[in-house]
Amino acid sequence: MRMLINVPETVVADALRGMAAAHPELTVDVENRVVVRRDAPVAGKVALVSGGGSGHEPLHGGFVGPGMLSAACPGEVFTSPVPDQMVRAAAAVDSGSGVLFIVKNYTGDVLNFDMAAELAEDEGIRVAKVLVNDDVAVTDSLYTAGRRGTGATLFVEKIAGAAAEEGAPLDRVEALARQVNEKSRSFGVALSACTTPAKGTPTFELPPGELELGIGIHGEPGRERRPMMTSGEIAEVAVQAILDDITPRNPVLLLVNGMGATPLLELYGFNAEVQRVLAERGVPVARVLVGNYVTSLDMAGASVTLCEADEELLRLWDAPVSTPGLRWGM
Amino acid sequence: MRMLINVPETVVADALRGMAAAHPELTVDVENRVVVRRDAPVAGKVALVSGGGSGHEPLHGGFVGPGMLSAACPGEVFTSPVPDQMVRAAAAVDSGSGVLFIVKNYTGDVLNFDMAAELAEDEGIRVAKVLVNDDVAVTDSLYTAGRRGTGATLFVEKIAGAAAEEGAPLDRVEALARQVNEKSRSFGVALSACTTPAKGTPTFELPPGELELGIGIHGEPGRERRPMMTSGEIAEVAVQAILDDITPRNPVLLLVNGMGATPLLELYGFNAEVQRVLAERGVPVARVLVGNYVTSLDMAGASVTLCEADEELLRLWDAPVSTPGLRWGM
Repeated sequence: MRMLINVPETVVADALRGMAAAHPELTVDVENRVVVRRDAPVAGKVALVSGGGSGHEPLHGGFVGPGMLSAACPGEVFTSPVPDQMVRAAAAVDSGSGVLFIVKNYTGDVLNFDMAAELAEDEGIRVAKVLVNDDVAVTDSLYTAGRRGTGATLFVEKIAGAAAEEGAPLDRVEALARQVNEKSRSFGVALSACTTPAKGTPTFELPPGELELGIGIHGEPGRERRPMMTSGEIAEVAVQAILDDITPRNPVLLLVNGMGATPLLELYGFNAEVQRVLAERGVPVARVLVGNYVTSLDMAGASVTLCEADEELLRLWDAPVSTPGLRWGM
Repeated sequence: MRMLINVPETVVADALRGMAAAHPELTVDVENRVVVRRDAPVAGKVALVSGGGSGHEPLHGGFVGPGMLSAACPGEVFTSPVPDQMVRAAAAVDSGSGVLFIVKNYTGDVLNFDMAAELAEDEGIRVAKVLVNDDVAVTDSLYTAGRRGTGATLFVEKIAGAAAEEGAPLDRVEALARQVNEKSRSFGVALSACTTPAKGTPTFELPPGELELGIGIHGEPGRERRPMMTSGEIAEVAVQAILDDITPRNPVLLLVNGMGATPLLELYGFNAEVQRVLAERGVPVARVLVGNYVTSLDMAGASVTLCEADEELLRLWDAPVSTPGLRWGM
């Protein structure tokens, strides 16, 4: 095991200390594991709280800031945060206008955010929840009943965050978040396994010369293994898997996401192939984002997420955002 | 070899097609391998051109845009671009105010940018050059006479780019670029080798349980191999190597840079340790950047770059920038 860490037990705490030291615009509570935008609570604004296991950075802590999340709760690596973190985050960011919990569909996250919602409501905080479950690769998995939440989380957090920043009320922000999730689909592929600090060995064994199609973001199994394919062939499979599930009638937002260890040089090349396939299938692309946004530690591979965007979603996507991981227009 | 590519021969061309498809704000000439900001030439503005081997993305193409580079010339992976690319780039961006070539100190790059400068001057373009050689790890190396150019390139391109954007004349932009390089030092460490598409096997063998200190950005040898160290110990070595070479009298800009395959979770933890060591050594940190900026394909590891910044450099660092790889304030 060769990792740039001290000991596995302090990886998350060390990373939070490092985030605090890098981003004075965030308030990082290392002990309680909550990342909050410094100006929270913002008067009259609905707050957005998300969170999940660590190891997917910049998701979620790197998406905290004006125009996106109000707070994030990082759990241990690939492990749900606990309700106490979520309640603490909600209390820190609620201005009285309510809080939207954005929850990726994994059993632990769902249970803990449910419990946190109850506890927060007991404290007088209005809470709405949206579940993100965009991954078309598998229905049930190691960690989920139903589809997994992956790349669409970024679209949900950005677009709902923009609406909240404009002053939309809680029911509207919730409805938009739900709409973005419903209009989004993802498919991922792994060229290598990832290694968690606690385990120290790869989460699965990929025989030489093979890749895994339909992978999740925790090294959990995908749809099938195949002999190595070209970037163009992988793009065909990923886009087709998505288009088997939805038929976009509007131009799409496209996320070509790296799983962590795949060089940007390769991601750009993959983007060229994904956009070629989309053009061949008659799907116009309105906006594109290429990079490492929803990662799986040191896994090599990539995922494709499409979100069908009407004029309103497109406008909210383009709205200014200022976070460590996503920033434009301010 | 498991890479997200079509064939090794088209990796750079595929990536440029993908950049073009992702960034409508750039003009990407795939055939001639030049990336140019769309509004170039900008009247009355000094232009900045850089380039080098591919495989270090987002450097350099990802740093093209308002406030930073005017154009970039990507070579083959880990191979210098050719003079024709540089002349073409200079001609595309020169407004008559002159062009600054920013050259990392590798033999091929130096020779080719020298030749390009002569050719451009024959075409009536005023050219100045600055050499970046910030890596304290080794003096001569596989690819260099003298120190290698690494992380400081980002500081040079950002700060000189800001000065050019404000309308500074060529001699002033050149002097600032030179000053930033002189005030910058870097030290890198590899936890794994990288694999080039053409070779298909790791560029070197790192025995299990060892790391390499003082690595360059092409997998060329560093100072020494040692049994695996903690993040804190690595931070001590890296910072000490830099402070053996300069004694900052002003607060520093700090770049904690990932080599490509090291998760952001680990980079943030490493940043915490680097800043701890700097605090212990009495070096105040004015600004911090943590992420994958000057990479080495899929190498695991990180580098530390410090740049001693007076008020003027700090002001230019903070100035707005809008590129795929670095963006704030606009």
